[in-house]
Amino acid sequence: MNMIRKRLETLRSDMKEAGIGICMIPASDCHDSEYVGDHFRSREYFSGFTGSAGTLVVTLKEAALFTDGRYFLQAGEELEGSGIGLMKIGEPGVPKLADYIIEKAEAPLTAGFDGRLAGAEWTLRLKKGLDRKGIGIDHGYDPAKRLWEGRPALTFGPVFSLPSEVSGEDTAKKLERIRRKMEEEECGIHILSTLDDIAWILNLRGCDIAYCPLFYAYMIITDREAFVYTDADLSRFFREDDPDFRPDLSGIGVLPYEDFWKDGLQRVNNCTGTGILSDKRRISYSVYMGIRDQERIRDRKAPSTFMKAVKNESELSALEDAHRKDGAAILRFSRWLSEKIRTEEDLSGLTEIALAKKLLSFRKEQEGFLEESFETISAFGDHGAIVHYSPDEKSDRPIGRGSFLLIDSGGHYLTGSTDVTRTWAIGDVSGKMKAHFTLVLRGMLRLLNLTFLKGARGSNLDLAARELFWEQGLDYKHGTGHGVGFLLSVHEGPQNIRWRIPEGGKPDAIFEEGMVTSDEPGLYLAGKYGIRIENEMACEKRYENEYGTFLGFRCLTYVPVDRNAIDLSLLDEREKKWLNDYHRLVYEKLSPLLSGEDLAYLKEVCEAV
Amino acid sequence: MNMIRKRLETLRSDMKEAGIGICMIPASDCHDSEYVGDHFRSREYFSGFTGSAGTLVVTLKEAALFTDGRYFLQAGEELEGSGIGLMKIGEPGVPKLADYIIEKAEAPLTAGFDGRLAGAEWTLRLKKGLDRKGIGIDHGYDPAKRLWEGRPALTFGPVFSLPSEVSGEDTAKKLERIRRKMEEEECGIHILSTLDDIAWILNLRGCDIAYCPLFYAYMIITDREAFVYTDADLSRFFREDDPDFRPDLSGIGVLPYEDFWKDGLQRVNNCTGTGILSDKRRISYSVYMGIRDQERIRDRKAPSTFMKAVKNESELSALEDAHRKDGAAILRFSRWLSEKIRTEEDLSGLTEIALAKKLLSFRKEQEGFLEESFETISAFGDHGAIVHYSPDEKSDRPIGRGSFLLIDSGGHYLTGSTDVTRTWAIGDVSGKMKAHFTLVLRGMLRLLNLTFLKGARGSNLDLAARELFWEQGLDYKHGTGHGVGFLLSVHEGPQNIRWRIPEGGKPDAIFEEGMVTSDEPGLYLAGKYGIRIENEMACEKRYENEYGTFLGFRCLTYVPVDRNAIDLSLLDEREKKWLNDYHRLVYEKLSPLLSGEDLAYLKEVCEAV
Repeated sequence: MNMIRKRLETLRSDMKEAGIGICMIPASDCHDSEYVGDHFRSREYFSGFTGSAGTLVVTLKEAALFTDGRYFLQAGEELEGSGIGLMKIGEPGVPKLADYIIEKAEAPLTAGFDGRLAGAEWTLRLKKGLDRKGIGIDHGYDPAKRLWEGRPALTFGPVFSLPSEVSGEDTAKKLERIRRKMEEEECGIHILSTLDDIAWILNLRGCDIAYCPLFYAYMIITDREAFVYTDADLSRFFREDDPDFRPDLSGIGVLPYEDFWKDGLQRVNNCTGTGILSDKRRISYSVYMGIRDQERIRDRKAPSTFMKAVKNESELSALEDAHRKDGAAILRFSRWLSEKIRTEEDLSGLTEIALAKKLLSFRKEQEGFLEESFETISAFGDHGAIVHYSPDEKSDRPIGRGSFLLIDSGGHYLTGSTDVTRTWAIGDVSGKMKAHFTLVLRGMLRLLNLTFLKGARGSNLDLAARELFWEQGLDYKHGTGHGVGFLLSVHEGPQNIRWRIPEGGKPDAIFEEGMVTSDEPGLYLAGKYGIRIENEMACEKRYENEYGTFLGFRCLTYVPVDRNAIDLSLLDEREKKWLNDYHRLVYEKLSPLLSGEDLAYLKEVCEAV
Repeated sequence: MNMIRKRLETLRSDMKEAGIGICMIPASDCHDSEYVGDHFRSREYFSGFTGSAGTLVVTLKEAALFTDGRYFLQAGEELEGSGIGLMKIGEPGVPKLADYIIEKAEAPLTAGFDGRLAGAEWTLRLKKGLDRKGIGIDHGYDPAKRLWEGRPALTFGPVFSLPSEVSGEDTAKKLERIRRKMEEEECGIHILSTLDDIAWILNLRGCDIAYCPLFYAYMIITDREAFVYTDADLSRFFREDDPDFRPDLSGIGVLPYEDFWKDGLQRVNNCTGTGILSDKRRISYSVYMGIRDQERIRDRKAPSTFMKAVKNESELSALEDAHRKDGAAILRFSRWLSEKIRTEEDLSGLTEIALAKKLLSFRKEQEGFLEESFETISAFGDHGAIVHYSPDEKSDRPIGRGSFLLIDSGGHYLTGSTDVTRTWAIGDVSGKMKAHFTLVLRGMLRLLNLTFLKGARGSNLDLAARELFWEQGLDYKHGTGHGVGFLLSVHEGPQNIRWRIPEGGKPDAIFEEGMVTSDEPGLYLAGKYGIRIENEMACEKRYENEYGTFLGFRCLTYVPVDRNAIDLSLLDEREKKWLNDYHRLVYEKLSPLLSGEDLAYLKEVCEAV
């Protein structure tokens, strides 16, 4: 019998015993993290599906996995034989997760799940629907704890401190700014459970989450006090050269992680007569249920979410260091690859995984490199058309001549994080392929060189890259850009560059000087190839006049664009100038880090067109 | 003593007697109309300020008028000597109207105003602030009724019916669609007080409001019944040729206007156990206060707001007729004007007002012309830089050679409404002026020729016109386009083309096939000149492919653009083609309506560049 079927059978017996009629198992942790630690991979344990996003719903009779377009193919394969139906989110006729649960739930049995893994706002909407059917929620039902044999423990790794030359602002100042916002919102207390916010405030970084240098913690901030709940080892600091260096935690109480549920919530509930600042989209349902006077919650994005998006001068100059190192690593990889292609007939050793590893090895040579900032997308040929493809042993294949290699990767360095995509033409590619590559390049350049008035949001700016695609009846089904965290998460709001604002949704944040955002149009031809070119850009002030403050972008990514893939006849004079300006910048930033053949190669690939 | 000071003194004595400490007098009617009838010009009566927008606030000690940038100059002049302070909305340091009232109000006196003239949502926010200071609201305090000597009566003019060839959908069908939406929202009753919604549903038009063919009415729709509260004479119909023609009111109860406040609200309050569909931004505070179970209100835009924005095929083909007639009228005006300029040395008779009158006389020659659709902006030279300038006796001036004449005007015809702006170079203008004119033209053309995916909102599209301005450090401080009603209001939502989404604001609606929107970038150099080119466009489907449904715009306005003002060297090949395509369309649509010298002139001004 299929292992997954067995696990589901065990789950169902347990559910029956506990009076649960329907159970939801999300792929989240307690902190609404994008990537989760192994301890939280219970959705994978019960379903067999290994993708990063997707929720399993199990009733006494059936089971369904909800996932999005990135994972339709993979989920279809991995769920085979499990008896779990695949619910393709966004496809016609597929219900929403909450609607499905409401429909399938049957009184008098309750709906059960670990409420620490479900967002408060979403669960409250679910609750409304279940209430109408007279069905209760048991948010303390934790199937992973009850049934997952060999579950990895929740581990708290070492934590290190960012020096002030890198963070640019000490914790006391950050708390002061946050408290000012709390005062404006008439809130005497503020609950935080998002790890990037907490790490940013404390100028500390950890290693508890995959691909993000974060550590498990909750935080409570009052008008005078602040408490961090974490079991992390705060004894390893960044400054190995300075044994006296201590992280900047004066005035902050450090308490055990699990104490949050008692001590932390008690502090919130004891702090009466004032608002509770908390973001219902980011705190879990269990945290919400632990708050006594829920009507006191001021449901707002955490002030730190806006603050950390605006990088200060120290962070921006550190970032330049990280991007130069990252650029040098990719440049070396690119030279190595072009050599291989030029000199070797047989490319069969150059598989997608091998290339990802090789690129990582170049990154590892760079001083201050910590880890990859997300799972590398190394995709050749038609794999490139699968937007979130990552090669595994089964799908891995060597590159060949005549198509595109797309690598989307990034690193965390002690001086900041990178996220960059380049697409290389391997051997000769067709005229049509070059035309498509050139279209993507033009979109990227046009957004990078846009001037806009302060007040604009990403939804205003997306057109700059996308208009050229729409003109030709083409599109890419993702945003043009996302905010990038500083040694936090590589995807962070509140600003993004994307055109769609869903019905009832709120627009992304207004752009401000210092925000770092990606610029990554792409084109994906299913079964053929994929192209994406991604740079990161810092928003900066151009000038001020009677019309307002004009902003623009400064490119932070220093990696040449493959000129062999460009059809120069499709670039107008302005676009050629933009391309040459960009390559001049790349040369200027990378040449001091390179020498010999690497430098010669850099010079060659950065030559003006 | 200044007349206004006297009126304010009388008002203050009355306020004291009534226990009112602060009184607000808005410039609205009971239906949140953009233009109001004379009966509602009480803000003008008490302040002397004649602009269309602005609210007067009077305390026992002081008085202030809040108005926006369009009226700073005019209000400054008109308020002189009145003792009323001018509050320039949006300027630094100027409080928001509600904040000002909250600050100035002093307990135990109450705040008084006519609650029928204030929106429910706004007033509820005001109430919150006043509550905190322990100050009540008397929303039945109507200074106009109590003190305005010689106040014009509320008049109900004749109402006419649109034939089905023009409306394209009968009232029964419209009600059916609305009731489906009510059912979706679980609402058994729907309150409407906006005149354009009511006129659209009933396929009736009136003349109670300036510049809008609307009639005073309220409407209540239940799942089975519908009631209109109006004193309008429903006996005059469109079809003078068909004495048997009757408007389509079967199944609709017609009751006296004032009965809404008793009978209408009673029906709402008697209809228990179901939601009340109503838009708190559009119903007045008095209507809101008349609803017993306010928590039953489903606060949604009226379904008809979305429905009327999407013009059906009958409306679209009627609109083409209206725009051809309007285009022919403007063409004749333009020929007449160019003749004058060519043949007459002395242009002193051609004042802004004289030109507006002349243009109106050409419109009046067109069959089916009803009235102007808004107050004509006829602005020469630096007057053109005042975005909402309308000439009055004092400001009126003749045109001269060497600058721009900007005319923004429109008409209601039996087949639809128009709104068009053209800017003409009078005599020779400088190279810089031509460059600016060409910039505006390019912005207009680029938006008109944009292709975009269904799902886009105006905030996504605005950049198409504005990017060229921002590139040069320029801007225009208004949206690029607004929805246009079909024989209703010339400004109607829910779609608009504008980039700014205010903090906490909602984005404008998603574009749909059949929506009619203006395309009107401009450039305004204070003290020098103003340029605006405005067309109306119908959204239509281009094609569908694997990426989705691609939409575009079809131009509805057929009026040549002054080629003498264009610097052709600044147009690229694509822009030249767009311009020639447009003029070919204008020629095709207008030539059947013109003959002789008019036709020859049309041919000349539509020639390809």
